[in-house]
Amino acid sequence: MDALLVIDMQNGCFKTPRYDRAGTSERINRVSARFRQEGKPVFFIQHDGTKEEYLFPGSDDFKILPELTTTNADYFVTKTANTAFYKTRLDQLLKKLYVDTLFITGMATEFCVNATIHSALAKDYNLVIVRECHTTAERPTLDAKSIIDFHNWLWANLTPTEGRVCVKSIDEIV
Amino acid sequence: MDALLVIDMQNGCFKTPRYDRAGTSERINRVSARFRQEGKPVFFIQHDGTKEEYLFPGSDDFKILPELTTTNADYFVTKTANTAFYKTRLDQLLKKLYVDTLFITGMATEFCVNATIHSALAKDYNLVIVRECHTTAERPTLDAKSIIDFHNWLWANLTPTEGRVCVKSIDEIV
Repeated sequence: MDALLVIDMQNGCFKTPRYDRAGTSERINRVSARFRQEGKPVFFIQHDGTKEEYLFPGSDDFKILPELTTTNADYFVTKTANTAFYKTRLDQLLKKLYVDTLFITGMATEFCVNATIHSALAKDYNLVIVRECHTTAERPTLDAKSIIDFHNWLWANLTPTEGRVCVKSIDEIV
Repeated sequence: MDALLVIDMQNGCFKTPRYDRAGTSERINRVSARFRQEGKPVFFIQHDGTKEEYLFPGSDDFKILPELTTTNADYFVTKTANTAFYKTRLDQLLKKLYVDTLFITGMATEFCVNATIHSALAKDYNLVIVRECHTTAERPTLDAKSIIDFHNWLWANLTPTEGRVCVKSIDEIV
């Protein structure tokens, strides 16, 4: 079974600009619509930043971006580390649903998206990273687009575990 | 207890050029010498690439670079994935030695070094990444030095778990 992960697409994470917010959100909506049509689960991961004094659960910052479609059938998992698997119920939920393949979207490319990819691979999930569905910000030494392009290359070159890993364009998926 | 990890500094990984091999090796030797002086364990991680048809255990490619100092007291752990914690005895060995803090060195910055950092953080180890002691190669969209600089910034900005994470210069360590 496939599942879609949408990582940290929360208001508070977009207070400073992220590369192509509108396009990224629109494309994630297209992928999630397809997943729901096919009866496949959609997971929204939300960062609880209480420890870092932001993204407090219950606050507007904590909420999913208003332009992203969510439904009552979707799953919402709160995390406190970069990886969505750290002390969360994600792995247990995925196993209960017989999920073996994760489609990865969200932000930030080099932080929580990357950390979640590494955890998932070490847990032997198959991974399909959607090339145009993750984003980040300008950083001190690299611009956002370079970081995104670099990680799309990097992930395609990770060593598989018992899980396979690939980077696909949204056009191959919806 | 501190432990030093030296990741994938093997002949076969340096067949194509890596950024500042000589300098990186010399600095790793300085750190490992200090660890041995202080009675702290040094771990060499070696990638078994049988699955990918390179770095076969027993081959010259599999061996640690000749310019790196190794001793009979050091630990050698073989891995098959990017992270040194995937189906290896590393975690068990570290726990047996009461290690709570890992000093990270080796290659490649954005692959096995990064993957091992993410695993170790998710396992609540404290991490000290040695800024000038990891290396990589020129990549299609980014040069090696930019990748190294970017990751030194990135790691310093990871979200701590129960483990802390910092990037230190070798001058702060030896």
